[in-house]
Order: sequence, then structure tokens, then C-alpha cells
Amino acid sequence: MQHRLELLTWGDVERYLERSRGIIVPIGSTEQHGPNGIIGTDFVCAEAIARRVGAATETLVAPTIPVGMARHHMAFPGTITLRPETLMAVLRDYVWSLAQHGFRTVSFINGHGGNIATAAAALSNIREELPEVQVEWIDWFLVPEVAAVAKELYADREGAHATPSEVSVTMAVYPDDVRVIDGPLDIEGCRVRGIGSSQAFREWYPDGRMGSDPSLARGEHGERLLAVATEAISARVRAQQSA
Amino acid sequence: MQHRLELLTWGDVERYLERSRGIIVPIGSTEQHGPNGIIGTDFVCAEAIARRVGAATETLVAPTIPVGMARHHMAFPGTITLRPETLMAVLRDYVWSLAQHGFRTVSFINGHGGNIATAAAALSNIREELPEVQVEWIDWFLVPEVAAVAKELYADREGAHATPSEVSVTMAVYPDDVRVIDGPLDIEGCRVRGIGSSQAFREWYPDGRMGSDPSLARGEHGERLLAVATEAISARVRAQQSA
Amino acid sequence: MQHRLELLTWGDVERYLERSRGIIVPIGSTEQHGPNGIIGTDFVCAEAIARRVGAATETLVAPTIPVGMARHHMAFPGTITLRPETLMAVLRDYVWSLAQHGFRTVSFINGHGGNIATAAAALSNIREELPEVQVEWIDWFLVPEVAAVAKELYADREGAHATPSEVSVTMAVYPDDVRVIDGPLDIEGCRVRGIGSSQAFREWYPDGRMGSDPSLARGEHGERLLAVATEAISARVRAQQSA
Amino acid sequence: MQHRLELLTWGDVERYLERSRGIIVPIGSTEQHGPNGIIGTDFVCAEAIARRVGAATETLVAPTIPVGMARHHMAFPGTITLRPETLMAVLRDYVWSLAQHGFRTVSFINGHGGNIATAAAALSNIREELPEVQVEWIDWFLVPEVAAVAKELYADREGAHATPSEVSVTMAVYPDDVRVIDGPLDIEGCRVRGIGSSQAFREWYPDGRMGSDPSLARGEHGERLLAVATEAISARVRAQQSA
Amino acid sequence: MQHRLELLTWGDVERYLERSRGIIVPIGSTEQHGPNGIIGTDFVCAEAIARRVGAATETLVAPTIPVGMARHHMAFPGTITLRPETLMAVLRDYVWSLAQHGFRTVSFINGHGGNIATAAAALSNIREELPEVQVEWIDWFLVPEVAAVAKELYADREGAHATPSEVSVTMAVYPDDVRVIDGPLDIEGCRVRGIGSSQAFREWYPDGRMGSDPSLARGEHGERLLAVATEAISARVRAQQSA
Amino acid sequence: MQHRLELLTWGDVERYLERSRGIIVPIGSTEQHGPNGIIGTDFVCAEAIARRVGAATETLVAPTIPVGMARHHMAFPGTITLRPETLMAVLRDYVWSLAQHGFRTVSFINGHGGNIATAAAALSNIREELPEVQVEWIDWFLVPEVAAVAKELYADREGAHATPSEVSVTMAVYPDDVRVIDGPLDIEGCRVRGIGSSQAFREWYPDGRMGSDPSLARGEHGERLLAVATEAISARVRAQQSA
Repeated sequence: MQHRLELLTWGDVERYLERSRGIIVPIGSTEQHGPNGIIGTDFVCAEAIARRVGAATETLVAPTIPVGMARHHMAFPGTITLRPETLMAVLRDYVWSLAQHGFRTVSFINGHGGNIATAAAALSNIREELPEVQVEWIDWFLVPEVAAVAKELYADREGAHATPSEVSVTMAVYPDDVRVIDGPLDIEGCRVRGIGSSQAFREWYPDGRMGSDPSLARGEHGERLLAVATEAISARVRAQQSA
Repeated sequence: MQHRLELLTWGDVERYLERSRGIIVPIGSTEQHGPNGIIGTDFVCAEAIARRVGAATETLVAPTIPVGMARHHMAFPGTITLRPETLMAVLRDYVWSLAQHGFRTVSFINGHGGNIATAAAALSNIREELPEVQVEWIDWFLVPEVAAVAKELYADREGAHATPSEVSVTMAVYPDDVRVIDGPLDIEGCRVRGIGSSQAFREWYPDGRMGSDPSLARGEHGERLLAVATEAISARVRAQQSA
Repeated sequence: MQHRLELLTWGDVERYLERSRGIIVPIGSTEQHGPNGIIGTDFVCAEAIARRVGAATETLVAPTIPVGMARHHMAFPGTITLRPETLMAVLRDYVWSLAQHGFRTVSFINGHGGNIATAAAALSNIREELPEVQVEWIDWFLVPEVAAVAKELYADREGAHATPSEVSVTMAVYPDDVRVIDGPLDIEGCRVRGIGSSQAFREWYPDGRMGSDPSLARGEHGERLLAVATEAISARVRAQQSA
Repeated sequence: MQHRLELLTWGDVERYLERSRGIIVPIGSTEQHGPNGIIGTDFVCAEAIARRVGAATETLVAPTIPVGMARHHMAFPGTITLRPETLMAVLRDYVWSLAQHGFRTVSFINGHGGNIATAAAALSNIREELPEVQVEWIDWFLVPEVAAVAKELYADREGAHATPSEVSVTMAVYPDDVRVIDGPLDIEGCRVRGIGSSQAFREWYPDGRMGSDPSLARGEHGERLLAVATEAISARVRAQQSA
Repeated sequence: MQHRLELLTWGDVERYLERSRGIIVPIGSTEQHGPNGIIGTDFVCAEAIARRVGAATETLVAPTIPVGMARHHMAFPGTITLRPETLMAVLRDYVWSLAQHGFRTVSFINGHGGNIATAAAALSNIREELPEVQVEWIDWFLVPEVAAVAKELYADREGAHATPSEVSVTMAVYPDDVRVIDGPLDIEGCRVRGIGSSQAFREWYPDGRMGSDPSLARGEHGERLLAVATEAISARVRAQQSA
Repeated sequence: MQHRLELLTWGDVERYLERSRGIIVPIGSTEQHGPNGIIGTDFVCAEAIARRVGAATETLVAPTIPVGMARHHMAFPGTITLRPETLMAVLRDYVWSLAQHGFRTVSFINGHGGNIATAAAALSNIREELPEVQVEWIDWFLVPEVAAVAKELYADREGAHATPSEVSVTMAVYPDDVRVIDGPLDIEGCRVRGIGSSQAFREWYPDGRMGSDPSLARGEHGERLLAVATEAISARVRAQQSA
């Protein structure tokens, strides 16, 4: 059965709502991801995992939110960002729309660390204004089972942005767009120093990586990460829906 | 060459900007499209055309804005809408981000009539605040060459929403998700009566169509419409970029 | 009987509401109107027509909204504009106020093309938030009967801004403020090229006209246009109120 | 010479700006004004005075802002109110527009006490954001010379809303719309008790008056008040422009 | 008994609400106060009076709002200001929060003239949206009994900002932070000329005073003013709560 | 020397700015803190630490922001919350005001976990709009040296809200307001289950604690925590100022 909302008719959705009140919303970002990471990394990962979770749990998957909060990456061309207040409005409008139709559990699957704070602020409002809806926010890369695999594969070369984990997932999803990095990357020169203005970000992290070594990324790692993420997050989505 | 922004690195974009200042942004809607039209029809069409135009004109294509202004469709399940003020903020943030990097012509390719007014309001602000950027807004279904084909194929059965044209395009893009309508549809019972509240919309147009007959949609029509739209819009994008 | 809301007492309105739930709101703009058009053209026309329609249909007429969305005219001195978001708030507050008192059909009579998109965005919200109110938006210059007269009088010299039609109406309303244009105007040099930033607008249309020839305007044309507009719009207002 | 902005062309304004940088903006309210006061009282008074001041000082007069902040009057039918934040946006947009064209002294002539606080809040922003513009806010009914005449004519029957002063001015402006009150009005029963919610307002002031006796209003008083207000405010406008 | 909300537990508040529905909210400003006035003068005064009133009337006192609307003081270092729209949101959120818990009379005790207009605008909204709550706004320095003492003590040297009254109150509250002014102050050179932009403010009032002589301030005056204010405002708070 | 901004004159601040560009802003919350924690716990702690850090580092301390983002605590009486968008505006206005005067390092010392996400969203904007200002956000209870003491004192009875650490600090600051809890508290019954709506919060955590045992709190612990926090945070503030 098709679980992508955009490929169903409204009649299909009406029938779906008779048996389930759950929906998944992937959200990512459009931002620089270091020397070989693609700009869509965050939403490509979130979307790939969300669609697998949708299939595994027979839950609808809404269209991906491809642009998130990435003001601090704006010194690298290609980044598109919403201001935090815009992203808050977008999240509010999504959940409000879904609540109108009778959806009662909304599971965001997020691919971008920079979205977390803004989303938490938005959800503080949404939870009071739409208390009938259970909203869950799942950062796929922070799920313990996923983090364990990343640690096993990359140890302290995982880093905090443009990580080999996320780059590996995009290689699995878009094998034709894999880029190989020649020679070793400087890890110490991009060690994690916090987040400042976009100008400071580019000074501190000249090629966009935060303490990571994406030269270690491989498509087969991506497949494994996708499988682990799908299983772990599916369990959470099922638990949320039966709560 | 890859023209989808999300599949490039920031370094690729930096190089692209040395030769071109143009970018295409597809925008659609996530809303009911009658008895056999898929909910993603508007963004699926815009995205398919935008990617073809990007390839034809060697212009970058940003990630699609999949959810637009569809408050009047909210009585049909599956519709997701931004409020007009949210969509205005999203459009402003996209263009502002692109302008920061040096993009100077932004060509929105739009698949949803309901976005037009809100976008016009947003562009009134954007054009004053970012006068260095030329913003063009192209509704693919209103391009004369496209409208001529629709007229030839469907005459007065094209209608105003859930049209056979747009359903045909989605059939061409997602041939596995084609739905066949048995028997004739009532055209007179859904004749175009304007746009009111979402409740009025559902009363006036019980299955979501506005005066259209999507049982006429065919994948091969979709291919033809895609080709015509791509050619006509590519010409406009080239003209904008060389203006 | 007096139909201008501002000249009634609240007791008069209380009695009016016992017999009718309708009200008319004229809206225009304060913006340049070419070499001989007055800055108030758009609201002067809307107000004159609205008052005649109010008398003909025995419907109250609210005070005119004299300033609308005219950012693109801001390169010509004398123009005053609301930002789109401000105009949306104004429209929302008007309808919300009227709805509080029990008005149930609100007929905006509009004199400015630049208001249309912003108003449509505002009405998308208003119709969902105040579904008990029927809001109609009537652009007097687009009413078919009016457009037919303009075509008869001016053919392709009507143009799109600072038209002889609207200038004629202001001549009928303010005969003491008529200005005569000596010699022929350049039509080709101001042919309609779309709407861009305010700077582009002034470059494209150096004296403010968009493809029009307002030297053709005459007070007697204005009287005829007022009569035709009043009759046609009165019919629409009556139909709305009895729907 | 014509001083109403709406009756000039943009060319007239361009020439005006070569000799003067001043403009007057009348602002009022559309709200109940007791048993015989018309709903437009506040803007009718402000507009009449503003036009006289414009003629006396050879200063342009912008179109009147006819609807202001009147939430507390909303329990009486016919009142239309902007929310304070909407009025703040309107005032900001007016001054911003005028500043763009080179106006440097903007004199608001106000007819409604309920606008004062909101305008003061708006002007706090405007003065910081447009420090090159001198904005003056003049409440015609608080001008000492005017208050002295009101005191002489009505003593403690002037009250605080629906005053005989303002009703007299409207009688002078619209002599055909004068309403006569039979018999004495109860003053003690509507003594001034402050401003609460709109419901409290109607409870405290059942016919809309606040401690006033508008049965004393006369057209000839209105003429006198218009003359005094015009002279006193013209002096202030001249002083502002030469500061 | 403790009346400072911040020093109670939620259980204490639950019990309090069984016997009373009233609460006091002190509000001030953080802004320059002339040559010897401390930057916190306005909130120090409001807080000191509010706590005494709370004790006298057995009414809870919420934490003080220490920063208000002081844009016009921004040319003096140390001033912190909210924009008017921010202060409106803060006031709305305070009253909304208190209303949720069942508080029904909220008495703001204000120490800053610059807050009055913005608060009035905010209260216009609050009173319509939360009509079940009685909100009172008390400017301690405008209470007649207080003004009488100030007049007795300082006559025309009280002035309008950085007054000896308010400076005296801070001397009573913080006797260790008293500063003595040597020699006479220039009163004529800082005579009250209205409020303009922050730059104009500093030009007109070079040391921050508006027509005042704070060299007259004394701690013992402050004690007397505190006592008078407490008694007069306590009477108003009791009256409000029993209304 | 006095370091509390509110107790200085503007002249003092002008002199301070000649030698230092740093300022500390304490921020907390006004919200329930379990059975014996006071409602002001979060701002009392932040303020006490901030003032000690100010004295230790000779840095000015602005007035405390006493109310933060606590929507999820609203089912407990006495809680006052700002909406996230209001808190974002407040933070923006504080930093903007300080930046106007020449402050270049702003160190927020925060006492409330619920503020973190909203503040991060706000700082994303502030850092782009005021890149000349270095803004640091320090959660005193997450500073490693502080967390180590809390772990030593309370091990797994520290919990996540209404912790013995923060209650101890308030006992040290307000020894007269200490409340003793009789008998053991149920820890398992309030184990940390995440954050939901305010209603869910009260269901999950009936007396307001999240997995904590505040019966362990002691004033002497508070003194020790204050000392450790002051030393560790002073080092960070010095490092920020010399960066």
C-alpha cells in the first residue's frame, strides 16, 4: 500500500482515518554539508527514514519540510534558511491542518540539529493550543541505536555536522551522486567550538565540517544506518500511536 | 550535470555562481484534487516541470515548496495549508537567503492557483526590500502554450481545479499510481461558482472538482504537457536571465 | 434615507439591522495616477459608486478605506501605501467589527487593482475565521458591463493604470478639479510590461500611466460609467443579500 | 489652491515638495456617539479642521484615516475598530510612505481620545526609525483655546464622549443631518467612571454618552469651534514647520 | 504572612485563591534618571510600593516587570527598552497566565510615565479578550495624595522626569546608594519641551532631567511618599477587589 | 563597587563603558517548583549567581528577567509564562538596547531549562542581526562543576525539575522562607517521562517534581553550590570578555 500522502487521493485519506489517526512528517534543512556532503543531506536522510518507517508501521507520511532553521550556515552558498519565527509558523500550520482532519498523533522525524530548539519552542505553543494531538519529535541521528552504530563505525570522527553517518545515508539514497574525498581531512582544525554567527561559523569551520571526517562515509554504511534507524524509530512510532 | 540544488555541495554552488546568478524554485500545494487526483498534484507538476526547465536552461533548481495556501480546501482530509502570512514569510525567507549568496534572478514555477494572490502580496514586499533581485512568478498551467494544449485536449472539460491537465502530468510522473474513473462524471453539478469558505467549497464541489472532468486524464497527455510547458517556460527563464 | 454609516447614530444602525444584515465598504488607494489623474482616483471612484449602490439598494455604506496596497507606485510623490500585512489586518478588523454587530453580507467595492491580491489573501483567512459572514469583493472596473463601456469609449487606449475610465469618473465627481492634457500622449512608450519594484515601475512608466491615454477622459463619460457601474453592481449586491 | 492631496496629481506634489516639506493627516474614529451624535463624528471633526488648517497654512492634507482604535465602543452597533497593533502599523506605513517622498513634518490632527495611547506607542517607534521626520500629534479638542470655548458654552455638561462640542462641529459640517433631542438628558446616570471592557462601557453608559449633554449642541457653536480650532492649530503647524 | 508570589509554593497559591482572586503586578523601567537618580528608579519605586500595598491589603504581589518602554531614553547608556509591541505582548501574557489560574483582579502599580500609553493599548485588547478579569492600572506618582505631597515638598521643582519624589523613594529603599549633588542644578535649561526621538531627548535634556531638581531629594521624603502612596493605593486595591 | 545596573546612574555606566564592554543578564522563570520549592526558584538562583559573578569579575549585572517560558507548568497556580515569541522579542530588545550603548559581550545566566530552546531560537536571529555582539548563554545548573556537586550530594535524587540543588540555593538566599518536607517523597511516581502539554505535565507529575527529591535540600548545600557556580561561571565570563 502507498503511504506517501502526496500520492493518495482525499478519499484514500478519509478511509485511512477510519483505521488510524497517525501521521509522520519528515523535516530537514537545505544547507551546506562540508566538502562532499550534499546540500539536501538533512532532508534526504529524514525523508528516506520516514518513508521506511511509514511502510513498516503502515502510517501515512506527509510531504517533507525541506528547508529549516539554518541561519548559522548562511555564509556558505546554497544554504536556504527560514527565520525561527517562520519555521514556528510552518510547524503550527502543519499540525493545525492535520488536527482539523482528525489526525491525533503526529511524529516529526528530523534530520537537522539546528531545527531542534525552534521546534521545541513551536511545540510549546502547539501542545497547549491543540492538546488533543500527541506530537512527537524524533531526531534520527540521536536515537541511541543509531548513535551506537555511528560510534562503532566512526568513533570520534563522527563530529557534529557533515558527519560520516549522514553523508553515508545520502550515498545509499543517491548512489549516483557520491563524491570521493582524496587524502586525509584536517579534523583538529575544525574541532567543535560551538555555534556563533554565520560569519564566525565560516571562520571556525572553513570547509563547513564540525569536527567530522566525512571521507569515511560509504553507501553500505548508509544502508545499515537506514535499517537501524527504521527499526528503532518504527518502535517509537508504534508506541506513540498505541499510547 | 546535476541541477538539483539539494544534490550539490556548497562548493558546487560557489562555482555555479561564477557563471550564473539564476535559480528556479518550484512551489505547489498539498491538497485534495478530486476523485482520482493525488494530493500532491500541484507540487508534483511544478517540480517535474522545474527540473526539466533546469536541465534545459542549465539553471539550478531549489528544493520544492510542497505546501502552499489551501485554506479553502481544508474540508477535504489530507489537505495541509499554510496561512497566507506564513507563506509570505516562507517566500521572503527563500528569496532573502538566495540573495545573500548572490543569486539575482529567482524564477518561481507554481502549480497552484491558490498561491497566486498570497505570492503577489509577498512579492510586493520582496521587490522593494531586495530590488537587486529579479523575481519572476510563472504559473505553468496559465502559460499560453500549455493552455492551448489543454483546450485542444479537453475543451470545456478542463475546469478550474482537479483538471485533466494536471492529473495527466501526475500520471506521467507517477505511472504506478494512476487511478481509473469508471463511468461519466457530473460536470454540471460541480460547475465553477467561485471560492468561499472551506465549508462552502465542499458544499459546492462535493467531490473536490471545480468544473473539471479528470476521467479524461492520460499519462501520454501528461508527457505532451510536460514537453510543452518545459519549452515555453525555458524560454521565459532564459529571457529573464539575460534581461 | 441616509445610507452613509458615518452620518447615522448607533440607534439608526440598531434599527437598520432589524431589517437588513448587509453593508458596503468602498476601498481604494492613494497613489499617483499619471499626468492628469488625481492621487485619490481609486478611492474617489469606489466611494462614488458605493454611495450610489447604497442608495439604489438601501444598503449602508461604511467609511471608505482610502489607502491600500501601492508599494509599486512609491517612486511617485504623493503615493501612500500600506504594506500587504497591514492591509490584511485592516480588512480583518473591519469585517470582524461588522460581524460583531450582526452584519452578515459585506460587499467590498474596490477601485484599485493593486489591492486585489492582498485582499484575496486576507479573505482566505476571514472566510475561515468568520464563516457566518458572506464577503464579496467587487472590482468596479472589471465588472463586464463597465468594461464594455470602457472598450466602446477608448478601445485599446484604456490601458491598465491611470485609465481614461477612472479619470473620467473623477471628473464627474470633482468637475472643478479637471485638468486638460495638451497634445497627444505617447502610448507605445508606456506599454504594459508587468509590475516590478517601484524603481522599475518609474523607469518603465515615466509619467505613471500603464498603456493608457487619459487625455481621452471626459466628465460626461464619467457620468455614464457611474450609471452603468451602479446598475450592474447593485444587481450583484442584491443577489448576494438574498442568497 | 487645492490642498487636498487626493485632488492633486503626483506632478503637483513634486512641485509642492520644492517649497514645503509639511503635510497634515486627519485621523478620527468610526464609533457610536450617543443619542444624537453621528458615528463619523470624530473623523468628520478632524477632517473639517484639517482642511481649514491646510488652507490657512498652505499645507497639504492627506486623506483622512476614518477608523481608529475603538474596541471599548464595540457594544454599540455601527462602531468599527482597528486593534491597537493594526493602527500602529497603519500609522507607521503612512509616515514611512510620506518620508520616502521627502516630507519632513507630519502633523496628525486627531478627533478621538481613544487613539491617543495607541498613537503614542506607534510614534515611539516611528521617531526612532525615522528620526529625520518631525511628527506632531494634535488632539483638536484638547487645544487650550478650544477647551476654553467648550467650557464657556457647556461648563460641566461638556463631558468626555459624545460631547456637545464635537456634535456641534458635525452639525456645522452636515447641517442636513442634525438631530434634535427632546427633553432633558440624564447626566448623573452617565457620569464618567473610566474605561473598561466594551460590555462594561455599555452598562456604565447605556446610551453611549460619557457625562455629556449633547442636547446643547448647535451648528453655530460648531462654526465658532471650527474657527477657534483652525486658528490655534494653524499656529502650531506653522511653528512646527519653521522649527 | 509572605505576599511575594516568588517566595510561595504553588500549594500556597492554590490556598490563597480559595480566599482571594486579587494580585498586584509592579512594573517600572530600566532607564537613565538624571545626574543622581539610579537607572532602576522606576521599578524600585513601583516594587517598594507594591510590596507595602500587598502587605497592607493581604494581596499577592507578582515579580516586578523591571524593563518597560523607554525608547526615548536610549541616548543615555544603561537604558534598556522593550519596543511597544513587545511590552504589549508581555502584559498580555502576564494577565493571560494569571487568568488561567483564576485571578480576577489584577492591579498593575506602575512607576514609569513612558509605559502608560503602551499599557493602555495593551489593556484595550486584554479587556476584550479576558472580560472576566478586572485590570486596574495605577501610576503611583499620579495618585492625588502623592502628587499633593510632591507639590508641598518641591513645588515647581518636581518636574517630569528624574523627579525629586522618585529619587527620594529610591534613597529610602537603598540608603547606601544615595548620591549627593553639589551646587545648584539648572532648571530652566532642562524645562519640559515634550518627547521626541531619543536624540532630540538628549539634546533637549542634556543630563537626563526633565524640568526637575533632584538635588532636593532626601531619604526621609521617600519614607513619607512611600507611606502616603501605600495608604492611597491600598484603598484603591481594596475597592477594586470588592467591586 | 556597585555592579547592579539598576543602582547606578547613567554617568556611572558611561564611565564603566570606557573600561569594559561586558554585561551579565540573569534570566529565570516564575513557575511551580514542587511541594517545597518557591515559585521564583529559577530567577532567584540565576540572580544570586549573577550578582556574585558580577562582583567577582567586576562586570555589570542587568536587572533580572524574572518570567520566562513556562507554558508546560501552567496547570499549577502561580506560574506566569511568556509565549515563546514574546520571550524571543524580550531577548532581542535587551541585546539590541545594550548593543546601542556599546556593550559587546552579553552573558545570560539562566536558571530555567524551559528557556533554553526559545533562547536558542532568539539567539539565532540576534547573532545575525547584531554580529558585533558576542552573546553567551550559560545554564548554571548544567555547568560541569555544578553538576558534579549535585551528583555528589543527591546522586539520582537530583531529578530534572524542582531539584534539591536549586531548592538548596533558594534556601541559602532566603533562609527565612525555608519549608521542611515531612516524610519520604515518592520518586518512582514522578519519574521523568518527557514534556507534554500542561495538562499532561500535571497528570505525570502530580506535585510538580520531575524525578527529584527536594526534601534533601539544605541551605548549606546552597551556599556550596553558589560558590562553585560563581567560580566556574566567572571563569567563563572572563574568558568571553577577553576573547
